[in-house]
Amino acid sequence: MKDATLIIYNANEVCTLDNGGQGLRTGAAMDNLNVIEKGAIALVEDVIVGVGTTEEILDSFRAETQIDGTGTVLMPGFVDPHTHVVFAGSREHEFEMRLRGESYMEIAAAGGGIRSSMRATRAASVTQLIEESIPRLNRMLAWGTTTIEAKSGYGLELETELRQLEAIRELHKQHEIDLVPTFLGAHEIPDEYRDHVDEYVRIVIEEMIPAVVERGLAAYCDVFCEAGVFNIDQSRAILQAAKAAGLKVRLHADEFVDLGGAMLAAELQAISADHLLAISDEGIQAMQEAGVIATLLPGTTFSLGKKEYAPARKMIDAGLPIALATDCNPGSCYTESMQIIIALACTQMRMTPAEAITASTLNAAHALELGDHIGSLSVGKQADIVVFDMPSYRTLPYHFGVNHVRFVIKRGEVITV
Amino acid sequence: MKDATLIIYNANEVCTLDNGGQGLRTGAAMDNLNVIEKGAIALVEDVIVGVGTTEEILDSFRAETQIDGTGTVLMPGFVDPHTHVVFAGSREHEFEMRLRGESYMEIAAAGGGIRSSMRATRAASVTQLIEESIPRLNRMLAWGTTTIEAKSGYGLELETELRQLEAIRELHKQHEIDLVPTFLGAHEIPDEYRDHVDEYVRIVIEEMIPAVVERGLAAYCDVFCEAGVFNIDQSRAILQAAKAAGLKVRLHADEFVDLGGAMLAAELQAISADHLLAISDEGIQAMQEAGVIATLLPGTTFSLGKKEYAPARKMIDAGLPIALATDCNPGSCYTESMQIIIALACTQMRMTPAEAITASTLNAAHALELGDHIGSLSVGKQADIVVFDMPSYRTLPYHFGVNHVRFVIKRGEVITV
Repeated sequence: MKDATLIIYNANEVCTLDNGGQGLRTGAAMDNLNVIEKGAIALVEDVIVGVGTTEEILDSFRAETQIDGTGTVLMPGFVDPHTHVVFAGSREHEFEMRLRGESYMEIAAAGGGIRSSMRATRAASVTQLIEESIPRLNRMLAWGTTTIEAKSGYGLELETELRQLEAIRELHKQHEIDLVPTFLGAHEIPDEYRDHVDEYVRIVIEEMIPAVVERGLAAYCDVFCEAGVFNIDQSRAILQAAKAAGLKVRLHADEFVDLGGAMLAAELQAISADHLLAISDEGIQAMQEAGVIATLLPGTTFSLGKKEYAPARKMIDAGLPIALATDCNPGSCYTESMQIIIALACTQMRMTPAEAITASTLNAAHALELGDHIGSLSVGKQADIVVFDMPSYRTLPYHFGVNHVRFVIKRGEVITV
Repeated sequence: MKDATLIIYNANEVCTLDNGGQGLRTGAAMDNLNVIEKGAIALVEDVIVGVGTTEEILDSFRAETQIDGTGTVLMPGFVDPHTHVVFAGSREHEFEMRLRGESYMEIAAAGGGIRSSMRATRAASVTQLIEESIPRLNRMLAWGTTTIEAKSGYGLELETELRQLEAIRELHKQHEIDLVPTFLGAHEIPDEYRDHVDEYVRIVIEEMIPAVVERGLAAYCDVFCEAGVFNIDQSRAILQAAKAAGLKVRLHADEFVDLGGAMLAAELQAISADHLLAISDEGIQAMQEAGVIATLLPGTTFSLGKKEYAPARKMIDAGLPIALATDCNPGSCYTESMQIIIALACTQMRMTPAEAITASTLNAAHALELGDHIGSLSVGKQADIVVFDMPSYRTLPYHFGVNHVRFVIKRGEVITV
């Protein structure tokens, strides 16, 4: 008998996402969670030391704390690889204006859009940004998310971009959730550069990226590559500069218009290209060949009231690896819940429950290059686990709009939510 | 100073839904929640005795328990006027089959559909039905719902229909939530009557309705009037018999096909006609003239992955009163949350936040003929109140997929959820 610190046994299902390997999954492999029925898991502090049937685990391990998992489903903590969760202010009035049929331009003219969050964020101190963001991180954790990516991009000037990234670094230290920081200085064109965008691009490249890299504040650089925001050449210039400075790259691509963002992601060997509602068949093929992950954000399509989602089925059939994320932000998609994202992925993009969960755990971990460390319930990995009160993993999208989490384990620590 | 038992003061917004009257709302009146900013409310036991600004209430009332409502929004408890929440078993496998493109007929051939829940419900005792339903009622309460309608319809034979209605009566007694019972023996055609539907209709009329009425087990009679289920003539016969026996009527109408269900609802002066995705313009006009409420169930459209929702805007423009409901059931829409229904109503049917909340409170109360008693925060009404942790009522659909409830008050009792 080996000693463990915690055992959970008798779970209806342990969704391991481990078939002997834990690599990024594509095609049919996304549709298999490698479920162990009547399963159990053993931890030593923050490390998974055993996963198997209840019989196997109880025969091999003993622990002071043994939790009866009857009626539960265990899976890896959700990884949310695309968020703008650190911001100030909120924009519920703009949401209502959109419902009343006002156009983006009218909303912008009334002070709305990313610039509205920019003004609130520019006015906020690091402390305020942290205080406003903690309830959101608490909600993410309560809904089963244990690791996220978080972007800057509401500063659009050096000082505020740095403050936002400092808030992300501080939240990573203070909060149970792990935050992976992304610099997104090119999130929108600030008003003062609307007539000379290239000058803003120069500032991002020559002033912001070096300052961010010097302070070690970001792992990734991202660009909102879209009609009316940054075009392909501007996006390429920024991302090439970021790579040269030592950042990895990811990008907002082909959300509304097929500008060729997916092709650019392939060309630059980005880790991930995100949104992709308007992606071309060539874009899918190029990303597949270059090994770029497609991170899909169905909550945004939903909250904007649009009918056409990213072509997930076509992407899966083409062998493109898919991750899912909330896009949590104060404008187009304000939700912290990966559970509602999974429901959207299934009902609106026709992903199967297993595919959607793979995309929210193992593939999402790979989208942050953390696939060796988290994203599956594998011996040796960090103990980031969600314990759901439900009969089957299929319950997540089927029984929607409520919270199925019984408790969360982050780095081996049980967190009652 | 008058004595109260409980005061909540300093709420960001108190959404009273009271403009001097509390009648059913149509047209532009649905778009106004009669909000009091920096509002307060005073209760004596289970009755609202004062609603006004914080200054007004604190000048007029004192109470031993005074709760600081800073950062909250108060509104009437949600009323959910269409649910099938009392059932046995679950159907997550069928949900997955549907995502994989299997047809209704294939799913039925594999034992799925309403008949699957029927088999599980027929096999369950009243006690089992109560035990399986309590967690769902708890979830409803935790998400802000204080009164619901609950239908039979998974028995499709006399004994089980009666057991289901007995479970509803017992849950009404035991649980904080008030349940209004509806007899829905004509929910589906049981296999044994597939080739002689009229014989089943005869049993509903001659055996079931009298037994239900004799035991006082239902306030309403409902029929699933739809192609492949009960046609217009059969629906009319059942509902006329129900009216003759003293039940009020409501019906599932024009969900998939425009059979003329809305016209039938108007003809019979039903309290409500529900679903209505395929309603004709004539149906809208007939319902409007007859004063029938349109109860819309956008969660069902969403969970079935359909793109076209009921034409809420057209109905509102035509002066038709709209209520919203979850349709909570184990097949086509398994959710207990009126919060996600409000998000769906706004983003998918283009209702405004105020319209969706009116449809989930005051109009929903009228859809159960309880508009004089609940559904608004009015002096003299029962103290069924939700206290939300959010800046504005607009937050409900804007910041979606999570639970904004801080606590619920049911009949004056504070329930921490």
